[in-house]
Amino acid sequence: MKADATREEIRHVEEIIEKLGFRPHAMPGAARTAIGVTGNPGAIDPTHFENLPGVSEAIRVTKPYKLISKDLRPEKSVIRVGNATIGGDDLAMIAGPCAVETVDQVFTVAEAVAKSGAKFFRGGAFKPRTSPYAFQGKGEDGLKILAEVRDRYGLNIVTEAMDERGVDLVEKYGDCIQIGARNMQNFSLLKYVGQTRKPVLLKRGMSATLEEFMLAAEYVMAEGNYDVILCERGIRTFGNHARNTMDLSVIPAVHRLTHLPIIVDPSHGTGRNYMVNPLARAGVAVGADGLIIEVHPCPEEALCDGAQALTLDQYAELYAQVKAIHEILAKEEMVIAHA
Amino acid sequence: MKADATREEIRHVEEIIEKLGFRPHAMPGAARTAIGVTGNPGAIDPTHFENLPGVSEAIRVTKPYKLISKDLRPEKSVIRVGNATIGGDDLAMIAGPCAVETVDQVFTVAEAVAKSGAKFFRGGAFKPRTSPYAFQGKGEDGLKILAEVRDRYGLNIVTEAMDERGVDLVEKYGDCIQIGARNMQNFSLLKYVGQTRKPVLLKRGMSATLEEFMLAAEYVMAEGNYDVILCERGIRTFGNHARNTMDLSVIPAVHRLTHLPIIVDPSHGTGRNYMVNPLARAGVAVGADGLIIEVHPCPEEALCDGAQALTLDQYAELYAQVKAIHEILAKEEMVIAHA
Amino acid sequence: MKADATREEIRHVEEIIEKLGFRPHAMPGAARTAIGVTGNPGAIDPTHFENLPGVSEAIRVTKPYKLISKDLRPEKSVIRVGNATIGGDDLAMIAGPCAVETVDQVFTVAEAVAKSGAKFFRGGAFKPRTSPYAFQGKGEDGLKILAEVRDRYGLNIVTEAMDERGVDLVEKYGDCIQIGARNMQNFSLLKYVGQTRKPVLLKRGMSATLEEFMLAAEYVMAEGNYDVILCERGIRTFGNHARNTMDLSVIPAVHRLTHLPIIVDPSHGTGRNYMVNPLARAGVAVGADGLIIEVHPCPEEALCDGAQALTLDQYAELYAQVKAIHEILAKEEMVIAHA
Amino acid sequence: MKADATREEIRHVEEIIEKLGFRPHAMPGAARTAIGVTGNPGAIDPTHFENLPGVSEAIRVTKPYKLISKDLRPEKSVIRVGNATIGGDDLAMIAGPCAVETVDQVFTVAEAVAKSGAKFFRGGAFKPRTSPYAFQGKGEDGLKILAEVRDRYGLNIVTEAMDERGVDLVEKYGDCIQIGARNMQNFSLLKYVGQTRKPVLLKRGMSATLEEFMLAAEYVMAEGNYDVILCERGIRTFGNHARNTMDLSVIPAVHRLTHLPIIVDPSHGTGRNYMVNPLARAGVAVGADGLIIEVHPCPEEALCDGAQALTLDQYAELYAQVKAIHEILAKEEMVIAHA
Repeated sequence: MKADATREEIRHVEEIIEKLGFRPHAMPGAARTAIGVTGNPGAIDPTHFENLPGVSEAIRVTKPYKLISKDLRPEKSVIRVGNATIGGDDLAMIAGPCAVETVDQVFTVAEAVAKSGAKFFRGGAFKPRTSPYAFQGKGEDGLKILAEVRDRYGLNIVTEAMDERGVDLVEKYGDCIQIGARNMQNFSLLKYVGQTRKPVLLKRGMSATLEEFMLAAEYVMAEGNYDVILCERGIRTFGNHARNTMDLSVIPAVHRLTHLPIIVDPSHGTGRNYMVNPLARAGVAVGADGLIIEVHPCPEEALCDGAQALTLDQYAELYAQVKAIHEILAKEEMVIAHA
Repeated sequence: MKADATREEIRHVEEIIEKLGFRPHAMPGAARTAIGVTGNPGAIDPTHFENLPGVSEAIRVTKPYKLISKDLRPEKSVIRVGNATIGGDDLAMIAGPCAVETVDQVFTVAEAVAKSGAKFFRGGAFKPRTSPYAFQGKGEDGLKILAEVRDRYGLNIVTEAMDERGVDLVEKYGDCIQIGARNMQNFSLLKYVGQTRKPVLLKRGMSATLEEFMLAAEYVMAEGNYDVILCERGIRTFGNHARNTMDLSVIPAVHRLTHLPIIVDPSHGTGRNYMVNPLARAGVAVGADGLIIEVHPCPEEALCDGAQALTLDQYAELYAQVKAIHEILAKEEMVIAHA
Repeated sequence: MKADATREEIRHVEEIIEKLGFRPHAMPGAARTAIGVTGNPGAIDPTHFENLPGVSEAIRVTKPYKLISKDLRPEKSVIRVGNATIGGDDLAMIAGPCAVETVDQVFTVAEAVAKSGAKFFRGGAFKPRTSPYAFQGKGEDGLKILAEVRDRYGLNIVTEAMDERGVDLVEKYGDCIQIGARNMQNFSLLKYVGQTRKPVLLKRGMSATLEEFMLAAEYVMAEGNYDVILCERGIRTFGNHARNTMDLSVIPAVHRLTHLPIIVDPSHGTGRNYMVNPLARAGVAVGADGLIIEVHPCPEEALCDGAQALTLDQYAELYAQVKAIHEILAKEEMVIAHA
Repeated sequence: MKADATREEIRHVEEIIEKLGFRPHAMPGAARTAIGVTGNPGAIDPTHFENLPGVSEAIRVTKPYKLISKDLRPEKSVIRVGNATIGGDDLAMIAGPCAVETVDQVFTVAEAVAKSGAKFFRGGAFKPRTSPYAFQGKGEDGLKILAEVRDRYGLNIVTEAMDERGVDLVEKYGDCIQIGARNMQNFSLLKYVGQTRKPVLLKRGMSATLEEFMLAAEYVMAEGNYDVILCERGIRTFGNHARNTMDLSVIPAVHRLTHLPIIVDPSHGTGRNYMVNPLARAGVAVGADGLIIEVHPCPEEALCDGAQALTLDQYAELYAQVKAIHEILAKEEMVIAHA
């Protein structure tokens, strides 16, 4: 749409699209509103739309994805999560324990996270575990503890849902619905979170190509939820010195392709305590919009993934280092912008 | 349990296990019944059980899996699917189109499949597609067509479910619930099919290790459904001459570890028409308990995965070749058994 | 060239090619001789050649490979190795110990291999070992033992060379120069064996794509040695139940692309004794031209790769099974040919 | 050895080791000299040595590697390359074209590299190309151009050798012998460069595990050349948005295991111009000791790998950014060291 298109003009274009039996997706930006069209079996003649009032141009997106694409929306999406945002100028820090275990454990970490200046808190109430006999999370009780964290510490809650019932509960108690790597191609679940109005943190599947990753986001957006934050958390390779292989080259590739923000998870991405800080630094240096980090008051006692959790001190050190790197990049960008 | 243990003795042991707060899993075999115990947080003293009447021996299974294990049940499981079985002496052939498209298409293939002597029919009503804009299957209408195939041609129906609603429908219309590769670690779905009483065809995830594959089966069995058929369908590697890399070494590895049968899917495993027959032959030669093959009356018109579907003639040729190889192996085994 | 082209006409075409500054590669077949041209920086006009006497047609091969291609030579190459061949109607069996250790060990295996009817003997005198501190092979002394095996048992010797000095020695003592997986892209070595006149067994590198594998063969052939036998020996993946992942789909892919024969190495391909026989059967069923199998009189005492070596009895059982499968395929092909 | 051990005491220990039929490897450090022992078939009793004059302690290294290990030499190795060093406090920048093409091309880049403050120049005279028909490098003529670069611009020359003849020439003309990824397990070549006295830049093979990578370095060191610089250049995975997948987690893993320095090659590691700068930043942020970067005056005209080469301007921008990140890390380390 043109920069000065009115609300009525936008609505009119949406109605035309609906009348044709397709689905309009209006995504307002700082300057202009983009309207994506999906549901069309083949190509539609762009001239259908170009003569409508308020329309700037109609572009046929022939790539397999539409709504995630920069062709549709060239400027970066800044996603609101609770009272903060991801994808803007600030580096988003999401920290907290792998799993919600006890009120004490959660509050101890939350206090440290809040004090550090981070705005997001992570913690799993539903845990996807490889073995049916491993700790599966505290469920709704865990979510209630997380909701208390928000009230008490002002942190926005990012937490995983594994099925529809879980999505309903996370929508109720949390601020951002995390879809785990193992569910990245659980298409029914993607459609379901696409119908909620909470932002979605979508983790890359452990053997997902870039295109599959983008199309998983497209599944969510095609249902009308455009608030998708991507997350690189390591892929599966022959390598055995870390639990997964962090694929940091996906960050510039994602930024080239889509307007959606992407963050990095060096905790699951490496599975090794001593690698988390170096890979967090690398993730910020490569251009990620944020980090998600596991912190535990006493990692060796963690019920889940203790080997990778940072102590509170290690977390503080990490945050100091990545903020310094993030500032450098911001300054460099300014230099480039003024050159 | 001892070979001559009575129903009462078996029930008594189950009650003791339940009284301890654990979960008993009785799996009757040809000679003896094995009872697995799950739900115990740590190791239990085996002598608790060895003195009970009818108990032959109590073995502590320290591996991460219990119910799938040959330690628990040394003889192979023969799984009943409708009016036939998978895992016994016969080679199981499951054939049919990738997706249910029209009554004509389905009946044409079903007639050829029934005439060939195969006992199982495949066809998808719910299709997990990488893109939200690709054909997603005909849903319940497709399942109704498949139910007609059973009535008309006496074929047992194997078809995929992607979510709980789908499981309910497949339970109603089909004979075997297929869980696709992308859902192999959709643990909520695994638990849900574990509560049905229909056999489950569990496809290996595209980057699943053997242990993860076994634990996915364990998820289903831990809920009380012991009728799990495994399926190798190719893994993701750097290789690009086929869509996936068939990992046939997993067949002997699975047979060494578990009593569950395993079949091979060379259609999805290769994604190339000309490779399906050679890899089907290889799958039978390596020792798989069956095959699942895509057949289409007119592959180039298929709405889904046409590039890999066999014509009716190619299917007939494949079946003749694999039966000949299967007979050779059966004869060889007899020779070895008598030596 | 035309089927009735004379030696002079062939020589004349070669001279023209040389005069243009390029390199001719004459490959005589059963019916016709093909002449490949390499060394041209860009495309050459085919009409340069089509008017020469004896020329049937000039085809521009635009794929990255020329000499390996079926476009150049549609009929399969049958490679002479000592007094036998690989690539024809017979299944080639190459058996023997991983490494030459002692005369006794080698002769014990050789006797069993000769009695089984196999025509080729393997055994390493130069061993590429991951660690510099592991047994590196007996060198020239080992080759002398292998030469004795040929004299005594009439077996043709296939043995590895790791460098130019090794190639010279294998050329002197052996019948076929093996290039190991780790040297598949040791281009200097490939060029060097391309200048010998002994056949080359080229193993696929552990992360080589089909195209890289074909271009490695092309390196050898571009130097004038057209007797290349390919070998699939497992690729590196995330899988950990076997040492490597046998990629049997590469066999039909290779047969579709090139006239060169390809064999399968289930010993290195799996690294597990109990998997060798099943994967050997699968390799023959998928259409490989032969097998290379490690046999040791006493696997648990082997200085190298004992875990995968077969006993003499296991080898006999394997050979019986794969011969039966090979016969079935030959019969089936006859049926198809007559249909 | 003790910190105050004399030259005579060190020599005496070496003689004892030699008398036992083993091989001593003296590696002098800032404070103490470590002496590695190799060539022993099994374990040696450490007390053999502990009573000798000047010996501080004798440690049995049971891991598969000895000379690369921090157990043997806890402090980091600083490797001298020409008139500069790699592995110390400075970030090593090695820049230059993929292949030496013309004097003009090389001098244009060299001037920019020298002006930027980098101390090392790269450029290939022998190019390992996947196809035998691709440009193979200018050979000795190329090396002579590189030698002129050293004389004219004071840059130290890092260049690849692919075989023994190449090693001899690089030793003559260059300052550091690069062993490419495809030759990482060319054990004959590793032994050969182990006998030279020029430092070796050893690139990780594209499917090499950490252990294989370390043992390749061990091959070089076991021959007496301890000046090995490691290089991560991307591994082969299923990913297809970059040519390789940079595995930055290997940097902290290497630093934990070995005293050898490791640098990062984002040019080959990504194969995409727009990814080189972000991954270079990430490589420095993760803790690499340096970078190797392809620069070309006119990338679109490069005879080799043009798609990944940076322009001179892009190179300048990259170097400014990574220096800023390196300074941040150095400051942070100081803060930590003083805390």
